[in-house]
Amino acid sequence: MTLDQIVEIDQKSENFSAVYTLRIRYREPALAYEPTPGAPPFRMLTFARAMEELQTHGVVWPGMFLANQQGRHDLSRQGMRIYPDGEVLYIERATAVFQAPDFDFRDFPFDTQSFYIRVESLLPDSLFVFEPLSEHIGVGDQLGEEEWVVFTSAAVVDTITGADGLGYSRFSLGFQANRHLLYYVVRIFVPMLIILVVSWSTFRLKDYMKRIDIGITVLLLLIAFNFTLGNDLPRLGYLTAVDAFIAGTFVITGAVILVNVQLRIWQHQGREREAERLDRLARIGYWPAYLVGMSTALLLL
Amino acid sequence: MTLDQIVEIDQKSENFSAVYTLRIRYREPALAYEPTPGAPPFRMLTFARAMEELQTHGVVWPGMFLANQQGRHDLSRQGMRIYPDGEVLYIERATAVFQAPDFDFRDFPFDTQSFYIRVESLLPDSLFVFEPLSEHIGVGDQLGEEEWVVFTSAAVVDTITGADGLGYSRFSLGFQANRHLLYYVVRIFVPMLIILVVSWSTFRLKDYMKRIDIGITVLLLLIAFNFTLGNDLPRLGYLTAVDAFIAGTFVITGAVILVNVQLRIWQHQGREREAERLDRLARIGYWPAYLVGMSTALLLL
Amino acid sequence: MTLDQIVEIDQKSENFSAVYTLRIRYREPALAYEPTPGAPPFRMLTFARAMEELQTHGVVWPGMFLANQQGRHDLSRQGMRIYPDGEVLYIERATAVFQAPDFDFRDFPFDTQSFYIRVESLLPDSLFVFEPLSEHIGVGDQLGEEEWVVFTSAAVVDTITGADGLGYSRFSLGFQANRHLLYYVVRIFVPMLIILVVSWSTFRLKDYMKRIDIGITVLLLLIAFNFTLGNDLPRLGYLTAVDAFIAGTFVITGAVILVNVQLRIWQHQGREREAERLDRLARIGYWPAYLVGMSTALLLL
Amino acid sequence: MTLDQIVEIDQKSENFSAVYTLRIRYREPALAYEPTPGAPPFRMLTFARAMEELQTHGVVWPGMFLANQQGRHDLSRQGMRIYPDGEVLYIERATAVFQAPDFDFRDFPFDTQSFYIRVESLLPDSLFVFEPLSEHIGVGDQLGEEEWVVFTSAAVVDTITGADGLGYSRFSLGFQANRHLLYYVVRIFVPMLIILVVSWSTFRLKDYMKRIDIGITVLLLLIAFNFTLGNDLPRLGYLTAVDAFIAGTFVITGAVILVNVQLRIWQHQGREREAERLDRLARIGYWPAYLVGMSTALLLL
Amino acid sequence: MTLDQIVEIDQKSENFSAVYTLRIRYREPALAYEPTPGAPPFRMLTFARAMEELQTHGVVWPGMFLANQQGRHDLSRQGMRIYPDGEVLYIERATAVFQAPDFDFRDFPFDTQSFYIRVESLLPDSLFVFEPLSEHIGVGDQLGEEEWVVFTSAAVVDTITGADGLGYSRFSLGFQANRHLLYYVVRIFVPMLIILVVSWSTFRLKDYMKRIDIGITVLLLLIAFNFTLGNDLPRLGYLTAVDAFIAGTFVITGAVILVNVQLRIWQHQGREREAERLDRLARIGYWPAYLVGMSTALLLL
Repeated sequence: MTLDQIVEIDQKSENFSAVYTLRIRYREPALAYEPTPGAPPFRMLTFARAMEELQTHGVVWPGMFLANQQGRHDLSRQGMRIYPDGEVLYIERATAVFQAPDFDFRDFPFDTQSFYIRVESLLPDSLFVFEPLSEHIGVGDQLGEEEWVVFTSAAVVDTITGADGLGYSRFSLGFQANRHLLYYVVRIFVPMLIILVVSWSTFRLKDYMKRIDIGITVLLLLIAFNFTLGNDLPRLGYLTAVDAFIAGTFVITGAVILVNVQLRIWQHQGREREAERLDRLARIGYWPAYLVGMSTALLLL
Repeated sequence: MTLDQIVEIDQKSENFSAVYTLRIRYREPALAYEPTPGAPPFRMLTFARAMEELQTHGVVWPGMFLANQQGRHDLSRQGMRIYPDGEVLYIERATAVFQAPDFDFRDFPFDTQSFYIRVESLLPDSLFVFEPLSEHIGVGDQLGEEEWVVFTSAAVVDTITGADGLGYSRFSLGFQANRHLLYYVVRIFVPMLIILVVSWSTFRLKDYMKRIDIGITVLLLLIAFNFTLGNDLPRLGYLTAVDAFIAGTFVITGAVILVNVQLRIWQHQGREREAERLDRLARIGYWPAYLVGMSTALLLL
Repeated sequence: MTLDQIVEIDQKSENFSAVYTLRIRYREPALAYEPTPGAPPFRMLTFARAMEELQTHGVVWPGMFLANQQGRHDLSRQGMRIYPDGEVLYIERATAVFQAPDFDFRDFPFDTQSFYIRVESLLPDSLFVFEPLSEHIGVGDQLGEEEWVVFTSAAVVDTITGADGLGYSRFSLGFQANRHLLYYVVRIFVPMLIILVVSWSTFRLKDYMKRIDIGITVLLLLIAFNFTLGNDLPRLGYLTAVDAFIAGTFVITGAVILVNVQLRIWQHQGREREAERLDRLARIGYWPAYLVGMSTALLLL
Repeated sequence: MTLDQIVEIDQKSENFSAVYTLRIRYREPALAYEPTPGAPPFRMLTFARAMEELQTHGVVWPGMFLANQQGRHDLSRQGMRIYPDGEVLYIERATAVFQAPDFDFRDFPFDTQSFYIRVESLLPDSLFVFEPLSEHIGVGDQLGEEEWVVFTSAAVVDTITGADGLGYSRFSLGFQANRHLLYYVVRIFVPMLIILVVSWSTFRLKDYMKRIDIGITVLLLLIAFNFTLGNDLPRLGYLTAVDAFIAGTFVITGAVILVNVQLRIWQHQGREREAERLDRLARIGYWPAYLVGMSTALLLL
Repeated sequence: MTLDQIVEIDQKSENFSAVYTLRIRYREPALAYEPTPGAPPFRMLTFARAMEELQTHGVVWPGMFLANQQGRHDLSRQGMRIYPDGEVLYIERATAVFQAPDFDFRDFPFDTQSFYIRVESLLPDSLFVFEPLSEHIGVGDQLGEEEWVVFTSAAVVDTITGADGLGYSRFSLGFQANRHLLYYVVRIFVPMLIILVVSWSTFRLKDYMKRIDIGITVLLLLIAFNFTLGNDLPRLGYLTAVDAFIAGTFVITGAVILVNVQLRIWQHQGREREAERLDRLARIGYWPAYLVGMSTALLLL
C-alpha cells in the first residue's frame, strides 16, 4: 500500500482525505494456467470478472475493508492480474476520507500528529495473514500538501480480536507530520510583537490616557486573534500552547492597563513621586512581565 | 450495533454523521449446511449473493431500515456469514447522517444532548423482533470527537405502531453527550471579564467621557460576541443560557453608560456633591449590578 | 405521503431538503394470489423484483415523479407489499431537495412561507388518478427544524395539462411556516435599541462633537447590520420589512448628525440661543423622529 | 427542451445549475405496432428497456450529450413513449451544472449575461439533425431565481464541425438575464452617499483634524466595501463599473484628506486668508469633485 | 485529449477541477467488419457493449487510468466507434479533480504555475505505447476561467517504471498559467498606497500624537490585509512576494511610530532642535524608508 496524494487534512473534523494505492499479492494454485507463447506475461481482469472466475473455481477471495474509513471511497483504478503460476496481484487506487482520532493539540502549533490507514481482513487469521510488500510501501514524493511536513512513515501488521473472539490480521500504514510554523510566525507572532513594541514605546510618554487607549486596542486585537485561532481547531477540552501564550499576553495587558489607571489617578491627585516610581517600574518591568506571563501560561499547561 | 466514529455533530442542522457497525444474528434452519472438514467454520457471502441464496430457499430476509437517517449512506463493508447450524450473521459498516431532533439549547453551553440511531424492522413484530446483542453494543473508544464528551450510551428495543396498525420492532442505540466548556471560558468569559475589569478600573478616574467611550466599546464587543455565538446555533425560538448572560451584561453596560452621562451632566452643572455620591455608588455597585443583571437574566429564562 | 424530517430550509437558493415517506396503494387484480396459511398477511418485494413480476403479468406500473425535485434523491427504504386481494402498497422513503419558488420576503422577518412537494403521474388521468390516503398524510412531529414553525399542512390533488395536451393527476403535500422572531429581536432590535438609547443619552450633554462621533459609530453599526441581514437573503428586487426598518434608522441617524453639526457651528459662532432652541427640539424630537422614520419606511414598502 | 428551474447561478465559477426537461421526438418505422383497443394511446418504457427493444429491432438510438455540462447530472425522470405509428418520444428531466463562459463583468452590476444549454448529437448530421419542438421550448415561469431577471430566451439549431471533420447537429437553449440593482443600491450606494453627506457636513465646521479623522474612516469603509464586492466576483483582469466607482471615490477621499491637512498647516502657520480661500473652494468643490472622480473612473473603463 | 473547461483551480488544496475529452485511437484487426452500403461509415457502441464485443473476440482492451486524479470522475459521454478497417476510436468526456502538486507560491501573486493531466497505461509498454493525436490535443478557447491566464500548453508522452519493474507508457497534457494582477493592485496595493500617502501627509503637521494614532491604524489595516491574503493560500513553509512586501511595510510602519514617539518626548522635554532635525529627516526619509523596507524584504526572499 502506498499513500500517493494527501487531498486535505481536516483537523477540525479530525480526519484526512488521501489517494492511496493498495496492492495485494497472494498465490492461489487453482488459478494457475498454461501461458500462451507471445502473450503478455499475465492476464488482466476487471474486479467483477475476477470475482466470477474465483467463484467458478470455488476459491474464496480474501476480502478486506478499510477500518478507519469515513463516508465513501472513489475508485480510480481497480483490477487484477493473474500470473501463470497462480500468483494473483490485486491493485486498487482510490480516494477516501480516513479518521485520524489521535490528534493532540496540546503543543499546537508545534505539534506532531500521527495519521494512519488501517486495512482489516474479513477472514480470520487462521485463513489469511497480511505480510507487508516492502517494495510497495511508502509515501509518495508529491503529496500536494503544503501545510504539513510528513517526516516519517511506517507499515505495521498486527492481529486484533474481532467481536466473535477470532483473530483478524490488520495492516496499518502510518505517517507522522508536523506543521510549517511560518504561518503562525508571520500572521500572529510578528504582528503581536510589533504591537507590543509600539505599546511599550508609548511608555516613554507621560500620557497615561494614551497608554490606556493603546492597551484597550491591544486587548481587542488579542480577542480577534483568539477567535481566529479558535476557528482553526475543534472546540477542545484543554488549552493549546498558543492559547496559553495569548492568555498570558491577555492577563499582562490587562495588568498594564490597571497600572496606567493607577498612575493616572496619582497624577490627578498630585502624588507625582509615587507615580514616577511606579512608572519607572512599569517601563522596566514591561518586557519581563510579558515574558513571565507567557512562560507561566506555557508551564501551567 | 456499535457506534464506531462520530464524523461531525452539526447542531445548526440538528443532525450528526457517524460510522456505525450493524450486526444482525438470527437462525434460519433452511440455510443449515454440512460443514466440510478443514474449511473455515462459516461461509462468507456478499449481500447480493446472500439475497439470491435466500430466495432460492424461499426464505424471507428480515429487512430493516434506519428510521432517522438523512440523505444517503455509504457502505464500507457489507456481508453475511452462514454457520453450519443455520445461524446467519449480517454485518454492515457504513457512514450516514442521522437526525437528532431532541436538541434543547436552553442550557447552552452547559447543555446535555441525546443522540440515537434507530433501526426499524420492515416485518411486523409477529414475524420479527429485535433482541440486543449485548456483546456488540456500545460506543467506540476513539470516536474522533473533541468538542463533545459522550458520557453514557444505551440500547433499547421497543415496538412502534406502523401506519398499517401492525406493530414493528425497533432497536435504538442512543448516547448522551455534553460539551467541553473550555472553549467558551477562554474565548468568551475570560475576555469579557478582563474587559469588564478594565472598564471598572476607569471608574477610579474622574474622566466621565472616557468611561462613556469605554462603555460604548464594551457594547460593540458584546454585539460582536452575540453574533459569533448566534452563528453557532440554529435560530431558536427561546433564549439560551449564554444569550441571557450576554443580554444581562448588555443591559447593565447600557445602564452604566447612562449613569456616567448623568455624572458628566452634574459635573458640568457644578453639582459636584450629587455627582460624588452617585459616583461612589456606581463604583461600589458596579460588580453587584453585573452579577444581579446576569443572574436575573438566567433566572428569567 | 408524509413529511418526516426537514433537513434544511435554504432561503437563499429557495429550496428545502426533506425526508419524506411516499405510500401508494392501488389494486391490481392480476397480482391477487392464494394466501398460504400461517404466512404473513402480505408478500414483501424489493422494487426491482416487483417490477419484474409486474412485467411478467403484463401490468403497467403507474409511474410518477417528484415535479419540483432538484438534484438527486437518496432512498433509505423502497419496497412493495402485495396483499392476497391484489392490493399493492408501495413505500418509498427518501431524502431530496425540493424547489420552493414561492418565497416572498416582503414581510421578512415576519413572513409566512409556503412549501410543497409535488408528485406527478406519468400516466394520463384517463388511466391513473391520485386520491389522498388521509391516514398517511401529514407532517411529522419531530421535524428537527428550529428556525421555522410549521403551523399548517394540507394535501391537494389536482390535474395539470401536460405538454402533450393530456391531463395528468398531481398530488401536492404543502405546508406553511413562519419564523421564530427571537433571533432578530435579540441580535438586531435590542442591540439597536440600546445603542439608540445610549446615543440619545449623549443629547443631555452639550458636547456636540461627541454626539457626532457616536452618530458615526451608529452609522457604521447599521452598515454592518445591513450586510449581515443581506447575506441571509437572496439579492432581491424589493425591500424587506427589516430593510425598510434599517433604512429608516439610517436616514434619521444621518439627520441627527447633520443637526449636531449645525449646533456645533452655531455654538462656534456664539449663536447660543438658536443652538439652545434646536438642541431642545432635537432632544424632544429624537424618539418621534426615529419612530416616524421607521414607520414611514415600512409604509412606503 | 425547457428550462424548469434555476438552482443557482455561480458567477465566481462561471456556471449555473438548472433543472431541465429534454424531449426528443422522432419517427422510427421499425417500432410501429398494432394498437390494442382500450389500451393507452402509447406504450411507456423505461430507458433501459427501450434500449434493449431498439437493439432487438437493429435500430440505432440517436445519442446525444450535453456539451457544456460540468460534473454529473441527476435524473429525476427518464422514459420513452412509443406511439402506434412508430413515433418515439424520449423525455428526460434532470439537474445539472452548465458552464457559462460568456460572463462579462465590465458593466457589473448593470451587466446582462447570456446562459445556454447545448445538446450535441453523437451521430453526424447526415444521419440526425435537430429540429426545435416549438411547443416544448421555453423557460419555466417559476424559476426560483430571485437575484437575476431572465428577460429573453431562444432556441437555436446549428451545425458544428467535429474533430473528425464531419458535421454534427447542435441544439442550444439560451437565455439572457440581468440583475436586480436594489441590493447594490441599498447595501452600497445609499450607505456611501449618507457617509459622504455626513463627511461633507463636517466641512461646515472649522475643525480640520475632525475632517481628517472622518476622511480616514471613509477610506477604511471603502476598503471594506471593496473587499466585499471583490469576493462576489472572480478575480478579473479588468475593472468593473462598481470598481471604477469605488476607485474614483477612493482617490477623491484621499485628495480631500490632503486638502484638510494643508488647511490645518496653514491654520497652524496663521495663514488664515489662504486657508479660508482653500476651505471655501473645498466646500464648494466637494460634490463636483466626487462626481468628476466617479465619472472619470467610469469613462476610463 | 483536450481540456475543454476549467471548473475551478483550488490553490489551497493544490488541485484543479476540469472537463476533458479523451480520445484513444488504435487498430484492432479482429474488429474489422464488412461495411453495409448506405449505413453510417462507422458503428457506434456504448462502452459496456464494446467491452462485451472485445471479449467475444478475445481481444484485450488497452486500459488506462488518470494518474493524478483525486476523488471520482463524472462521465458525461462515453462511447466507441469501430470503423470497417478495424480502427477503434474511444471517446470519453468527463469532469474530474486533478492534483497539481507543483504549486510554488514564492512569487505570488506574480507566479506562473504548471498544471497537467496524466494518463497511464495499464498494459506494459511492450504491449501498448501512447502516441499523441496532434489534431485532438489542446486547450479549449472557452475555459470559463477568469482568474488565471493559460498561456501555453503541451502534450508529452514518456515511459515510467512501474512498481513491478516493467515500463508503462504515460501521456501528459500540461498547461501553464499566471494570474491577472488587477485584483491585487485594486484591492491591496492601491488602498495601501493611498493610506501611506495620507499617513505621510500628516507628517506635515506637528501633531505627533496624531501621527502615532494614524500609524497604529495603518498597523491594524496591515494585519487585516495579512490575514486576508493568508486565507487565499495554503499555510506555506516560505514567504511569498506579497508577504515580504507586507512584512517590509509592517516593520517600517513600526519604525515610523517609534520615531514619532521620540519626537513627542523631545517636544515634551523642550528639545525642539533635536525634534526639528529628526522630524525633517523623517519627512524626507519616509518614502525611501518604505521603498528600502519593501525591496529588502523582497531581496531577502
